[in-house]
Amino acid sequence: MSYCVALRLNSGLVFMADTRTNAGVDNVSRYTKIHTWSVQGELQIYLLSAGNLATSQAVISHLQEGDKAPDGPKLGLMQVTSMFQAARLLGETLREVIGEMRDGGQEASKQFDATLILGGQVKGGKMSLYLIYPEGNFIEVSDDQPFFQIGETKYGKPILVRAFDECLSFNEAVKLLVVSFDSTIKANVSVGMPLDLCIYERDSLTPGHSQRLAEDNEYFQELSRLWGAKLKDAFGDLPDFQLSRPHRN
Amino acid sequence: MSYCVALRLNSGLVFMADTRTNAGVDNVSRYTKIHTWSVQGELQIYLLSAGNLATSQAVISHLQEGDKAPDGPKLGLMQVTSMFQAARLLGETLREVIGEMRDGGQEASKQFDATLILGGQVKGGKMSLYLIYPEGNFIEVSDDQPFFQIGETKYGKPILVRAFDECLSFNEAVKLLVVSFDSTIKANVSVGMPLDLCIYERDSLTPGHSQRLAEDNEYFQELSRLWGAKLKDAFGDLPDFQLSRPHRN
Repeated sequence: MSYCVALRLNSGLVFMADTRTNAGVDNVSRYTKIHTWSVQGELQIYLLSAGNLATSQAVISHLQEGDKAPDGPKLGLMQVTSMFQAARLLGETLREVIGEMRDGGQEASKQFDATLILGGQVKGGKMSLYLIYPEGNFIEVSDDQPFFQIGETKYGKPILVRAFDECLSFNEAVKLLVVSFDSTIKANVSVGMPLDLCIYERDSLTPGHSQRLAEDNEYFQELSRLWGAKLKDAFGDLPDFQLSRPHRN
Repeated sequence: MSYCVALRLNSGLVFMADTRTNAGVDNVSRYTKIHTWSVQGELQIYLLSAGNLATSQAVISHLQEGDKAPDGPKLGLMQVTSMFQAARLLGETLREVIGEMRDGGQEASKQFDATLILGGQVKGGKMSLYLIYPEGNFIEVSDDQPFFQIGETKYGKPILVRAFDECLSFNEAVKLLVVSFDSTIKANVSVGMPLDLCIYERDSLTPGHSQRLAEDNEYFQELSRLWGAKLKDAFGDLPDFQLSRPHRN
Protein backbone atom coordinates (compact mmCIF):
# COMPACT_ATOMS: atom_id res chain seq x y z
CA MET A 1 0.00 0.00 0.00
CA SER A 2 1.02 3.63 -0.47
CA TYR A 3 -0.51 6.98 0.23
CA CYS A 4 -0.26 9.87 -2.25
CA VAL A 5 -2.23 13.12 -2.37
CA ALA A 6 -2.34 15.96 -4.91
CA LEU A 7 -4.08 19.26 -4.13
CA ARG A 8 -5.12 21.89 -6.66
CA LEU A 9 -4.90 25.34 -5.06
CA ASN A 10 -5.51 28.71 -6.65
CA SER A 11 -1.79 29.37 -6.38
CA GLY A 12 -0.59 26.03 -7.71
CA LEU A 13 -0.34 22.29 -7.06
CA VAL A 14 0.97 20.50 -3.97
CA PHE A 15 1.96 16.82 -4.04
CA MET A 16 2.86 14.54 -1.15
CA ALA A 17 3.71 10.83 -1.18
CA ASP A 18 5.08 8.33 1.30
CA THR A 19 8.06 6.19 0.30
CA ARG A 20 7.28 2.75 1.69
CA THR A 21 6.71 -0.24 -0.55
CA ASN A 22 6.31 -3.83 0.48
CA ALA A 23 5.88 -7.30 -0.93
CA GLY A 24 4.56 -8.74 2.32
CA VAL A 25 5.42 -7.41 5.76
CA ASP A 26 8.76 -9.24 5.66
CA ASN A 27 9.89 -7.43 2.52
CA VAL A 28 9.73 -3.67 3.00
CA SER A 29 11.66 -1.18 0.86
CA ARG A 30 11.85 2.51 0.20
CA TYR A 31 11.14 4.04 -3.22
CA THR A 32 10.20 7.51 -4.29
CA LYS A 33 6.67 7.63 -5.68
CA ILE A 34 6.84 11.12 -7.21
CA HIS A 35 8.45 11.46 -10.64
CA THR A 36 8.86 14.74 -12.51
CA TRP A 37 9.41 15.82 -16.12
CA SER A 38 10.61 19.37 -16.73
CA VAL A 39 11.30 21.44 -19.84
CA GLN A 40 11.97 24.96 -18.58
CA GLY A 41 9.27 27.33 -19.82
CA GLU A 42 7.56 24.55 -21.78
CA LEU A 43 6.17 21.96 -19.41
CA GLN A 44 6.31 20.74 -15.84
CA ILE A 45 4.74 17.34 -15.11
CA TYR A 46 4.41 15.32 -11.89
CA LEU A 47 3.47 11.66 -11.64
CA LEU A 48 2.49 9.88 -8.39
CA SER A 49 1.89 6.14 -8.22
CA ALA A 50 0.26 3.64 -5.87
CA GLY A 51 -0.09 -0.08 -6.37
CA ASN A 52 2.24 -2.62 -7.94
CA LEU A 53 5.78 -1.18 -7.98
CA ALA A 54 6.91 -3.20 -11.02
CA THR A 55 3.96 -1.83 -12.99
CA SER A 56 4.65 1.79 -11.96
CA GLN A 57 8.34 1.44 -12.79
CA ALA A 58 7.59 -0.12 -16.18
CA VAL A 59 5.25 2.74 -17.05
CA ILE A 60 7.88 5.32 -16.13
CA SER A 61 10.62 3.48 -18.05
CA HIS A 62 8.44 3.29 -21.18
CA LEU A 63 7.87 7.05 -21.01
CA GLN A 64 11.54 7.76 -20.40
CA GLU A 65 12.51 5.62 -23.40
CA GLY A 66 10.17 7.73 -25.47
CA ASP A 67 11.83 10.89 -24.14
CA LYS A 68 15.30 9.63 -25.04
CA ALA A 69 14.35 8.72 -28.63
CA PRO A 70 11.81 11.36 -29.60
CA ASP A 71 11.58 10.03 -33.18
CA GLY A 72 11.21 6.42 -32.05
CA PRO A 73 8.03 4.37 -31.93
CA LYS A 74 7.22 5.33 -28.35
CA LEU A 75 6.03 8.76 -27.27
CA GLY A 76 7.60 10.38 -24.23
CA LEU A 77 5.96 12.75 -21.79
CA MET A 78 8.32 15.51 -22.96
CA GLN A 79 6.57 15.58 -26.35
CA VAL A 80 3.00 16.12 -25.18
CA THR A 81 1.31 19.40 -26.08
CA SER A 82 -1.40 19.34 -23.41
CA MET A 83 -2.09 17.75 -20.04
CA PHE A 84 -4.99 15.84 -21.60
CA GLN A 85 -2.53 14.30 -24.09
CA ALA A 86 -0.25 13.40 -21.19
CA ALA A 87 -3.15 11.70 -19.39
CA ARG A 88 -4.06 9.72 -22.52
CA LEU A 89 -0.43 8.64 -23.01
CA LEU A 90 -0.14 7.54 -19.39
CA GLY A 91 -3.46 5.71 -19.47
CA GLU A 92 -2.48 3.81 -22.64
CA THR A 93 0.95 2.94 -21.27
CA LEU A 94 -0.50 1.76 -17.96
CA ARG A 95 -3.11 -0.42 -19.70
CA GLU A 96 -0.43 -1.91 -21.98
CA VAL A 97 1.89 -2.75 -19.09
CA ILE A 98 -0.88 -4.44 -17.08
CA GLY A 99 -2.13 -6.17 -20.25
CA GLU A 100 1.32 -7.63 -20.95
CA MET A 101 1.37 -9.25 -17.52
CA ARG A 102 -2.06 -10.74 -18.07
CA ASP A 103 -1.26 -11.92 -21.59
CA GLY A 104 1.90 -13.53 -20.23
CA GLY A 105 -0.34 -16.07 -18.57
CA GLN A 106 -0.39 -14.47 -15.16
CA GLU A 107 -3.65 -14.89 -13.33
CA ALA A 108 -5.15 -12.50 -10.82
CA SER A 109 -4.26 -9.48 -12.92
CA LYS A 110 -5.57 -7.29 -10.12
CA GLN A 111 -2.31 -7.78 -8.28
CA PHE A 112 -0.47 -5.96 -11.09
CA ASP A 113 -2.74 -2.94 -10.84
CA ALA A 114 -1.43 0.55 -10.23
CA THR A 115 -3.26 3.85 -9.96
CA LEU A 116 -1.62 7.13 -10.96
CA ILE A 117 -2.04 10.82 -10.29
CA LEU A 118 -0.81 13.10 -13.06
CA GLY A 119 -0.42 16.82 -12.44
CA GLY A 120 1.24 19.84 -13.95
CA GLN A 121 1.00 22.29 -16.81
CA VAL A 122 2.00 22.50 -20.46
CA LYS A 123 2.69 25.90 -22.09
CA GLY A 124 -0.51 27.42 -23.47
CA GLY A 125 -2.74 25.14 -21.37
CA LYS A 126 -4.18 25.24 -17.90
CA MET A 127 -2.67 23.66 -14.81
CA SER A 128 -4.50 20.42 -14.00
CA LEU A 129 -4.64 17.11 -12.16
CA TYR A 130 -5.78 13.71 -13.44
CA LEU A 131 -6.49 10.44 -11.64
CA ILE A 132 -5.62 7.50 -13.92
CA TYR A 133 -7.20 4.09 -13.25
CA PRO A 134 -5.54 0.71 -13.95
CA GLU A 135 -7.97 0.30 -16.88
CA GLY A 136 -6.32 3.30 -18.53
CA ASN A 137 -9.26 5.68 -18.27
CA PHE A 138 -9.04 8.80 -16.14
CA ILE A 139 -10.89 11.67 -14.50
CA GLU A 140 -9.85 15.30 -14.19
CA VAL A 141 -9.87 17.44 -11.09
CA SER A 142 -12.90 19.74 -10.73
CA ASP A 143 -14.22 22.43 -8.43
CA ASP A 144 -16.27 19.80 -6.61
CA GLN A 145 -13.31 17.39 -6.41
CA PRO A 146 -10.28 19.68 -6.07
CA PHE A 147 -7.88 17.00 -4.80
CA PHE A 148 -7.03 13.37 -5.49
CA GLN A 149 -5.82 10.61 -3.17
CA ILE A 150 -4.53 7.18 -4.16
CA GLY A 151 -3.49 4.14 -2.09
CA GLU A 152 -4.57 3.99 1.55
CA THR A 153 -6.97 6.93 1.29
CA LYS A 154 -9.51 6.41 4.06
CA TYR A 155 -7.77 7.33 7.32
CA GLY A 156 -6.50 10.66 6.01
CA LYS A 157 -9.61 11.73 4.11
CA PRO A 158 -11.84 13.23 6.87
CA ILE A 159 -9.45 16.13 7.60
CA LEU A 160 -8.96 16.83 3.87
CA VAL A 161 -12.73 17.00 3.39
CA ARG A 162 -13.20 19.31 6.36
CA ALA A 163 -10.21 21.65 6.04
CA PHE A 164 -9.32 21.84 2.34
CA ASP A 165 -9.87 25.15 0.63
CA GLU A 166 -8.51 26.22 -2.77
CA CYS A 167 -7.45 29.53 -1.18
CA LEU A 168 -4.95 27.82 1.16
CA SER A 169 -1.38 29.09 0.92
CA PHE A 170 1.34 26.55 0.13
CA ASN A 171 2.41 26.55 3.78
CA GLU A 172 -1.15 25.89 4.98
CA ALA A 173 -1.59 23.18 2.36
CA VAL A 174 1.56 21.38 3.51
CA LYS A 175 0.25 21.57 7.09
CA LEU A 176 -3.00 19.94 5.92
CA LEU A 177 -1.11 17.18 4.13
CA VAL A 178 1.10 16.53 7.15
CA VAL A 179 -1.98 16.04 9.35
CA SER A 180 -3.57 13.72 6.76
CA PHE A 181 -0.37 11.67 6.40
CA ASP A 182 0.15 11.54 10.17
CA SER A 183 -3.31 9.96 10.66
CA THR A 184 -2.60 7.43 7.90
CA ILE A 185 0.88 6.47 9.09
CA LYS A 186 -0.47 5.96 12.63
CA ALA A 187 -3.13 3.56 11.31
CA ASN A 188 -1.42 1.54 8.55
CA VAL A 189 2.18 0.30 8.78
CA SER A 190 2.32 -0.11 4.99
CA VAL A 191 2.45 3.70 4.73
CA GLY A 192 5.70 5.13 6.11
CA MET A 193 8.13 8.01 6.42
CA PRO A 194 10.01 9.75 4.89
CA LEU A 195 7.54 11.81 2.87
CA ASP A 196 8.27 13.49 -0.46
CA LEU A 197 6.83 16.95 -1.04
CA CYS A 198 6.66 18.83 -4.37
CA ILE A 199 5.10 22.21 -5.04
CA TYR A 200 4.27 23.69 -8.43
CA GLU A 201 3.44 27.40 -8.77
CA ARG A 202 0.69 28.10 -11.29
CA ASP A 203 1.98 29.28 -14.69
CA SER A 204 5.63 29.01 -13.62
CA LEU A 205 6.44 26.09 -16.01
CA THR A 206 9.46 25.36 -13.85
CA PRO A 207 10.19 22.89 -11.02
CA GLY A 208 9.02 24.44 -7.76
CA HIS A 209 10.06 23.64 -4.25
CA SER A 210 10.70 19.99 -3.46
CA GLN A 211 11.80 18.44 -0.23
CA ARG A 212 11.92 15.17 1.69
CA LEU A 213 10.52 15.12 5.22
CA ALA A 214 12.51 12.54 7.18
CA GLU A 215 11.41 10.58 10.25
CA ASP A 216 13.10 13.09 12.52
CA ASN A 217 11.68 16.17 10.79
CA GLU A 218 10.95 18.59 13.63
CA TYR A 219 7.90 20.13 11.99
CA PHE A 220 6.29 16.73 11.37
CA GLN A 221 6.95 15.55 14.92
CA GLU A 222 5.69 18.79 16.46
CA LEU A 223 2.54 18.81 14.33
CA SER A 224 1.79 15.17 15.12
CA ARG A 225 2.09 15.84 18.86
CA LEU A 226 0.09 19.09 18.75
CA TRP A 227 -2.66 17.63 16.59
CA GLY A 228 -3.12 14.68 18.96
CA ALA A 229 -3.37 17.05 21.93
CA LYS A 230 -5.75 19.41 20.16
CA LEU A 231 -8.01 16.57 19.03
CA LYS A 232 -8.25 15.34 22.61
CA ASP A 233 -9.01 18.87 23.84
CA ALA A 234 -11.63 19.42 21.14
CA PHE A 235 -13.22 16.07 21.96
CA GLY A 236 -13.20 16.87 25.68
CA ASP A 237 -14.96 20.19 25.01
CA LEU A 238 -17.89 18.51 23.25
CA PRO A 239 -21.04 18.05 25.34
CA ASP A 240 -21.47 14.52 26.72
CA PHE A 241 -24.43 12.39 25.76
CA GLN A 242 -27.23 12.30 28.34
CA LEU A 243 -28.70 8.86 28.87
CA SER A 244 -32.44 9.25 29.09
CA ARG A 245 -32.62 7.29 32.35
CA PRO A 246 -30.22 7.31 35.29
CA HIS A 247 -27.23 4.96 35.37
CA ARG A 248 -24.78 4.02 38.04
CA ASN A 249 -21.74 5.65 36.45
CA MET B 1 -21.14 -2.26 4.15
CA SER B 2 -21.99 -1.60 7.79
CA TYR B 3 -20.26 -0.02 10.74
CA CYS B 4 -20.45 -1.53 14.24
CA VAL B 5 -18.33 -0.78 17.31
CA ALA B 6 -18.17 -2.37 20.75
CA LEU B 7 -16.26 -0.74 23.62
CA ARG B 8 -15.18 -2.42 26.84
CA LEU B 9 -15.18 0.13 29.67
CA ASN B 10 -14.46 -0.42 33.32
CA SER B 11 -18.14 0.20 34.02
CA GLY B 12 -19.54 -1.99 31.25
CA LEU B 13 -19.95 -2.46 27.51
CA VAL B 14 -21.23 0.02 24.93
CA PHE B 15 -22.40 -1.08 21.47
CA MET B 16 -23.31 1.05 18.49
CA ALA B 17 -24.33 -0.03 14.98
CA ASP B 18 -25.74 1.66 11.92
CA THR B 19 -28.86 0.20 10.29
CA ARG B 20 -28.20 0.50 6.55
CA THR B 21 -27.85 -2.57 4.36
CA ASN B 22 -27.58 -2.65 0.61
CA ALA B 23 -27.39 -5.05 -2.29
CA GLY B 24 -26.06 -2.43 -4.70
CA VAL B 25 -26.73 1.29 -4.41
CA ASP B 26 -30.16 0.80 -5.99
CA ASN B 27 -31.29 -1.60 -3.29
CA VAL B 28 -30.93 -0.05 0.14
CA SER B 29 -32.81 -1.26 3.21
CA ARG B 30 -32.83 -0.79 6.96
CA TYR B 31 -32.16 -3.64 9.40
CA THR B 32 -31.10 -3.67 12.98
CA LYS B 33 -27.60 -5.13 13.37
CA ILE B 34 -27.66 -5.56 17.16
CA HIS B 35 -29.38 -8.65 18.56
CA THR B 36 -29.69 -9.45 22.25
CA TRP B 37 -30.31 -12.55 24.36
CA SER B 38 -31.36 -12.04 27.98
CA VAL B 39 -32.07 -14.36 30.91
CA GLN B 40 -32.52 -12.07 33.90
CA GLY B 41 -29.77 -12.70 36.46
CA GLU B 42 -28.25 -15.49 34.32
CA LEU B 43 -26.89 -14.04 31.09
CA GLN B 44 -26.97 -10.98 28.88
CA ILE B 45 -25.54 -11.37 25.36
CA TYR B 46 -25.20 -8.90 22.47
CA LEU B 47 -24.43 -9.79 18.87
CA LEU B 48 -23.42 -7.25 16.18
CA SER B 49 -23.01 -8.22 12.52
CA ALA B 50 -21.41 -6.78 9.39
CA GLY B 51 -21.26 -8.38 5.96
CA ASN B 52 -23.79 -10.53 4.10
CA LEU B 53 -27.24 -9.97 5.62
CA ALA B 54 -28.57 -13.40 4.64
CA THR B 55 -25.62 -15.03 6.41
CA SER B 56 -26.11 -12.95 9.58
CA GLN B 57 -29.84 -13.66 9.65
CA ALA B 58 -29.28 -17.39 9.12
CA VAL B 59 -26.83 -17.50 12.03
CA ILE B 60 -29.31 -15.74 14.32
CA SER B 61 -32.19 -17.98 13.22
CA HIS B 62 -30.15 -21.13 13.90
CA LEU B 63 -29.38 -19.89 17.40
CA GLN B 64 -32.99 -18.91 18.05
CA GLU B 65 -34.18 -22.37 16.94
CA GLY B 66 -31.81 -23.82 19.49
CA ASP B 67 -33.27 -21.54 22.15
CA LYS B 68 -36.82 -22.61 21.33
CA ALA B 69 -36.04 -26.33 21.50
CA PRO B 70 -33.41 -26.61 24.23
CA ASP B 71 -33.39 -30.42 23.99
CA GLY B 72 -33.14 -30.43 20.19
CA PRO B 73 -30.07 -31.09 18.08
CA LYS B 74 -29.08 -27.42 17.92
CA LEU B 75 -27.67 -25.44 20.83
CA GLY B 76 -29.06 -21.97 21.51
CA LEU B 77 -27.23 -19.04 23.01
CA MET B 78 -29.48 -19.22 26.08
CA GLN B 79 -27.86 -22.51 27.08
CA VAL B 80 -24.23 -21.42 27.13
CA THR B 81 -22.42 -21.40 30.46
CA SER B 82 -19.62 -18.99 29.51
CA MET B 83 -18.86 -16.26 26.97
CA PHE B 84 -16.14 -18.47 25.51
CA GLN B 85 -18.74 -21.18 24.86
CA ALA B 86 -20.98 -18.57 23.23
CA ALA B 87 -18.10 -17.50 20.97
CA ARG B 88 -17.41 -21.12 19.97
CA LEU B 89 -21.08 -21.72 19.22
CA LEU B 90 -21.31 -18.57 17.11
CA GLY B 91 -18.08 -19.35 15.27
CA GLU B 92 -19.26 -22.88 14.43
CA THR B 93 -22.68 -21.68 13.31
CA LEU B 94 -21.19 -18.95 11.15
CA ARG B 95 -18.75 -21.38 9.50
CA GLU B 96 -21.57 -23.86 8.85
CA VAL B 97 -23.83 -21.24 7.26
CA ILE B 98 -21.08 -19.96 4.97
CA GLY B 99 -20.03 -23.55 4.22
CA GLU B 100 -23.57 -24.49 3.13
CA MET B 101 -23.56 -21.68 0.57
CA ARG B 102 -20.25 -22.82 -0.82
CA ASP B 103 -21.24 -26.50 -0.87
CA GLY B 104 -24.42 -25.49 -2.65
CA GLY B 105 -22.27 -24.79 -5.67
CA GLN B 106 -22.04 -21.06 -5.15
CA GLU B 107 -18.74 -19.58 -6.23
CA ALA B 108 -17.03 -16.57 -4.75
CA SER B 109 -17.82 -17.63 -1.20
CA LYS B 110 -16.31 -14.39 -0.01
CA GLN B 111 -19.52 -12.58 -0.87
CA PHE B 112 -21.36 -14.66 1.75
CA ASP B 113 -18.93 -13.62 4.47
CA ALA B 114 -20.04 -11.95 7.65
CA THR B 115 -18.04 -10.81 10.67
CA LEU B 116 -19.55 -10.71 14.16
CA ILE B 117 -18.92 -9.01 17.47
CA LEU B 118 -20.13 -10.91 20.51
CA GLY B 119 -20.33 -9.20 23.90
CA GLY B 120 -21.88 -9.68 27.27
CA GLN B 121 -21.63 -11.70 30.44
CA VAL B 122 -22.75 -15.08 31.77
CA LYS B 123 -23.33 -15.60 35.51
CA GLY B 124 -20.11 -16.62 37.25
CA GLY B 125 -17.93 -15.40 34.38
CA LYS B 126 -16.35 -12.14 33.40
CA MET B 127 -17.82 -9.58 31.04
CA SER B 128 -16.12 -9.85 27.64
CA LEU B 129 -16.09 -9.07 23.93
CA TYR B 130 -15.15 -11.36 21.02
CA LEU B 131 -14.54 -10.63 17.34
CA ILE B 132 -15.64 -13.64 15.25
CA TYR B 133 -14.22 -14.09 11.74
CA PRO B 134 -16.06 -15.66 8.77
CA GLU B 135 -13.76 -18.69 9.16
CA GLY B 136 -15.33 -19.29 12.57
CA ASN B 137 -12.27 -18.51 14.67
CA PHE B 138 -12.27 -15.54 17.02
CA ILE B 139 -10.22 -13.21 19.20
CA GLU B 140 -11.06 -11.80 22.63
CA VAL B 141 -10.82 -8.19 23.72
CA SER B 142 -7.67 -7.33 25.72
CA ASP B 143 -6.14 -4.40 27.56
CA ASP B 144 -4.17 -3.54 24.42
CA GLN B 145 -7.21 -3.92 22.18
CA PRO B 146 -10.12 -2.78 24.38
CA PHE B 147 -12.60 -2.23 21.52
CA PHE B 148 -13.64 -3.93 18.28
CA GLN B 149 -14.90 -2.46 15.03
CA ILE B 150 -16.40 -4.36 12.08
CA GLY B 151 -17.50 -3.23 8.61
CA GLU B 152 -16.31 0.16 7.34
CA THR B 153 -13.79 0.65 10.13
CA LYS B 154 -11.19 3.04 8.73
CA TYR B 155 -12.75 6.51 8.70
CA GLY B 156 -13.90 6.29 12.31
CA LYS B 157 -10.81 4.65 13.77
CA PRO B 158 -8.42 7.60 14.32
CA ILE B 159 -10.64 9.28 16.95
CA LEU B 160 -11.21 5.95 18.74
CA VAL B 161 -7.47 5.37 18.92
CA ARG B 162 -6.78 8.85 20.23
CA ALA B 163 -9.66 9.38 22.67
CA PHE B 164 -10.67 5.95 23.96
CA ASP B 165 -10.03 5.24 27.62
CA GLU B 166 -11.45 2.39 29.70
CA CYS B 167 -12.28 4.93 32.42
CA LEU B 168 -14.77 6.79 30.19
CA SER B 169 -18.29 7.10 31.59
CA PHE B 170 -21.16 5.73 29.50
CA ASN B 171 -22.10 9.26 28.45
CA GLU B 172 -18.53 10.05 27.35
CA ALA B 173 -18.32 6.73 25.51
CA VAL B 174 -21.50 7.45 23.56
CA LYS B 175 -20.05 10.84 22.65
CA LEU B 176 -16.93 9.10 21.31
CA LEU B 177 -19.02 6.67 19.28
CA VAL B 178 -21.15 9.45 17.85
CA VAL B 179 -18.02 11.27 16.62
CA SER B 180 -16.65 8.05 15.11
CA PHE B 181 -19.96 7.25 13.37
CA ASP B 182 -20.35 10.83 12.15
CA SER B 183 -16.96 10.66 10.36
CA THR B 184 -17.88 7.32 8.80
CA ILE B 185 -21.36 8.34 7.67
CA LYS B 186 -19.93 11.51 6.09
CA ALA B 187 -17.45 9.42 4.09
CA ASN B 188 -19.35 6.28 3.05
CA VAL B 189 -22.99 6.28 1.92
CA SER B 190 -23.27 2.56 2.66
CA VAL B 191 -23.22 3.44 6.38
CA GLY B 192 -26.34 5.35 7.46
CA MET B 193 -28.61 6.59 10.20
CA PRO B 194 -30.47 5.72 12.38
CA LEU B 195 -27.96 4.30 14.86
CA ASP B 196 -28.72 1.64 17.47
CA LEU B 197 -27.14 2.05 20.90
CA CYS B 198 -27.00 -0.59 23.67
CA ILE B 199 -25.30 -0.29 27.04
CA TYR B 200 -24.52 -3.15 29.42
CA GLU B 201 -23.55 -2.41 33.02
CA ARG B 202 -20.86 -4.75 34.35
CA ASP B 203 -22.20 -7.59 36.53
CA SER B 204 -25.83 -6.46 36.09
CA LEU B 205 -26.86 -9.56 34.04
CA THR B 206 -29.81 -7.59 32.79
CA PRO B 207 -30.57 -5.58 29.63
CA GLY B 208 -29.22 -2.07 30.10
CA HIS B 209 -30.17 1.11 28.34
CA SER B 210 -30.95 0.82 24.64
CA GLN B 211 -32.02 3.50 22.25
CA ARG B 212 -32.23 4.36 18.56
CA LEU B 213 -30.69 7.66 17.42
CA ALA B 214 -32.74 8.85 14.46
CA GLU B 215 -31.63 11.15 11.63
CA ASP B 216 -33.13 14.15 13.41
CA ASN B 217 -31.60 13.34 16.82
CA GLU B 218 -30.65 16.72 18.25
CA TYR B 219 -27.58 15.48 20.10
CA PHE B 220 -26.16 13.80 16.98
CA GLN B 221 -26.75 16.86 14.82
CA GLU B 222 -25.30 19.24 17.41
CA LEU B 223 -22.23 17.07 17.95
CA SER B 224 -21.62 16.71 14.20
CA ARG B 225 -21.77 20.49 13.75
CA LEU B 226 -19.60 21.26 16.80
CA TRP B 227 -17.00 18.62 15.96
CA GLY B 228 -16.62 19.99 12.42
CA ALA B 229 -16.14 23.51 13.78
CA LYS B 230 -13.70 22.42 16.48
CA LEU B 231 -11.64 20.38 14.03
CA LYS B 232 -11.35 23.42 11.77
CA ASP B 233 -10.35 25.61 14.74
CA ALA B 234 -7.82 23.07 15.98
CA PHE B 235 -6.35 22.78 12.49
CA GLY B 236 -6.19 26.57 12.15
CA ASP B 237 -4.29 26.84 15.45
CA LEU B 238 -1.52 24.51 14.27
CA PRO B 239 1.67 26.22 13.11
CA ASP B 240 1.97 26.48 9.32
CA PHE B 241 4.80 24.78 7.47
CA GLN B 242 7.68 27.08 6.52
CA LEU B 243 8.98 26.51 3.00
CA SER B 244 12.73 26.68 3.16
CA ARG B 245 12.90 29.22 0.32
CA PRO B 246 10.57 32.13 -0.39
CA HIS B 247 7.48 31.68 -2.56
CA ARG B 248 5.08 34.07 -4.17
CA ASN B 249 2.08 33.17 -1.99
